[in-house]
Amino acid sequence: MKIGIVGLGLIGGSLGLELRSRSYEVFGVSRSEETCQVALECGVADRASTELALLASTEAIFICTPLGAIIPTVQQLIPSLMPETILTDVGSVKTPIVEAITPLWSNFIGGHPMAGTAQQGIHAAQRDLFAGAPYILTPTEATPTEATQKLAEIVKSLGSTVYFCSPQHHDRAVAWISHLPVFTSASLIAACCHETDSTVLKLAQKLASSGFRDTSRVGGGNPELGVMMGRYNRQALLRSLFQYRQSLDQMIEYIEEENWLALRQILETTKAARSQFL
Amino acid sequence: MKIGIVGLGLIGGSLGLELRSRSYEVFGVSRSEETCQVALECGVADRASTELALLASTEAIFICTPLGAIIPTVQQLIPSLMPETILTDVGSVKTPIVEAITPLWSNFIGGHPMAGTAQQGIHAAQRDLFAGAPYILTPTEATPTEATQKLAEIVKSLGSTVYFCSPQHHDRAVAWISHLPVFTSASLIAACCHETDSTVLKLAQKLASSGFRDTSRVGGGNPELGVMMGRYNRQALLRSLFQYRQSLDQMIEYIEEENWLALRQILETTKAARSQFL
Repeated sequence: MKIGIVGLGLIGGSLGLELRSRSYEVFGVSRSEETCQVALECGVADRASTELALLASTEAIFICTPLGAIIPTVQQLIPSLMPETILTDVGSVKTPIVEAITPLWSNFIGGHPMAGTAQQGIHAAQRDLFAGAPYILTPTEATPTEATQKLAEIVKSLGSTVYFCSPQHHDRAVAWISHLPVFTSASLIAACCHETDSTVLKLAQKLASSGFRDTSRVGGGNPELGVMMGRYNRQALLRSLFQYRQSLDQMIEYIEEENWLALRQILETTKAARSQFL
Repeated sequence: MKIGIVGLGLIGGSLGLELRSRSYEVFGVSRSEETCQVALECGVADRASTELALLASTEAIFICTPLGAIIPTVQQLIPSLMPETILTDVGSVKTPIVEAITPLWSNFIGGHPMAGTAQQGIHAAQRDLFAGAPYILTPTEATPTEATQKLAEIVKSLGSTVYFCSPQHHDRAVAWISHLPVFTSASLIAACCHETDSTVLKLAQKLASSGFRDTSRVGGGNPELGVMMGRYNRQALLRSLFQYRQSLDQMIEYIEEENWLALRQILETTKAARSQFL
């Protein structure tokens, strides 16, 4: 089976390595001639090109571009495709993508592999990136069952655990566990930087250790990704942020009122609840 | 030199192991007969007792009880002490401790080793716990210089890096990097638990991975410690929480207004600022 990949970065590159090892024939497209060359040298693709026309004969295509480029890429790609070709993407937000592409291509199924590393680019590509990781597919009522089944088989061959849900459920779920943490964590760093007493600020910088390191990690990550989360998952993210502010206000209120019993109860609840997420 | 330790848990036990390896003679006191037995067996102390009177001949004493027991312990201890004995504690909040004990004992110096593990109790005690870790001492203007120097020498012998600051500066600094993260992190878990759509909640629980794990870690920790932070460092913690709420509101405002340029700028600032803490 011939599989196309558009965008040969960490995710696209790792998909190529893994799919080729499962005997799929992989056709890779990148905007960069150099990346195409690396893709061939590193075994990411059997054939590579800067032209989308390379994918004309493929049966399934993974769009692995940044979030903002997914819809324009599909629009450019469509004229070259066979009508039965399955299209999917790997974007971390699904509702706007699925809403825009479904009217253009009935064999489109939104996807989101929950895998990654701190690195980016084709040189970071690795096999086993998807092994044991959740991979969400968001078919709609109008999606042909056969297309969904075919794509699910490919995804399972990566070693991923496949979950099916609606684009809206996906976006609300990732708003909680992936997007909200970025902004609560970034707010922590931003707040600390507002310390006006330089003795305290310098001392805080010297004393920060594992607690601060972990809590601030995702807030100190790629700014571009954070903006994309806000831009494409704005509604679900704001919903989570508003609830977060309420939960924070509750904590502040207990501390202001010196209601230590209530504070202990809420901290016992959060301790117990965390294990249900991990 | 004879050193006393009251409270033989993770910190007290590790202090005992380390100090004995540096040829100090260690006298340990625990409320529990069993812990005293373990302390002798594991090499935490040369002598151990449930009676504070054991410490009558020691030259320096580390109070390693939980925060709430430090002041009462010192009050009970004082009648047994030689006037030149140096007293110190290892509590994570300094202002209320220093304010209460300084009038009772002039050779008291507040202390805070920034070291720990997820475990508790004497069985978790380990050598090298303090190696390379910051250890803050908070002498006041009234503290005899000789006492501070003697204590600093003992602390340096643990391999720690000693910092001197006022109790107030200490409390504000740890409010930022140690106490605030507990409440921002606990609020994250609490907010997620408010999801009323069970499909979304279950999906979020299945999809949570490293970002959620790190950001929620300290919020899912020991509730007792969180309450102690609120109770003993209430003023500095509230000061940090109020600033945090402002920083969070700023992020929310940018997302509501779709001001992506400002959002990107703030995320670039937090990315750059984080490295100054770690």
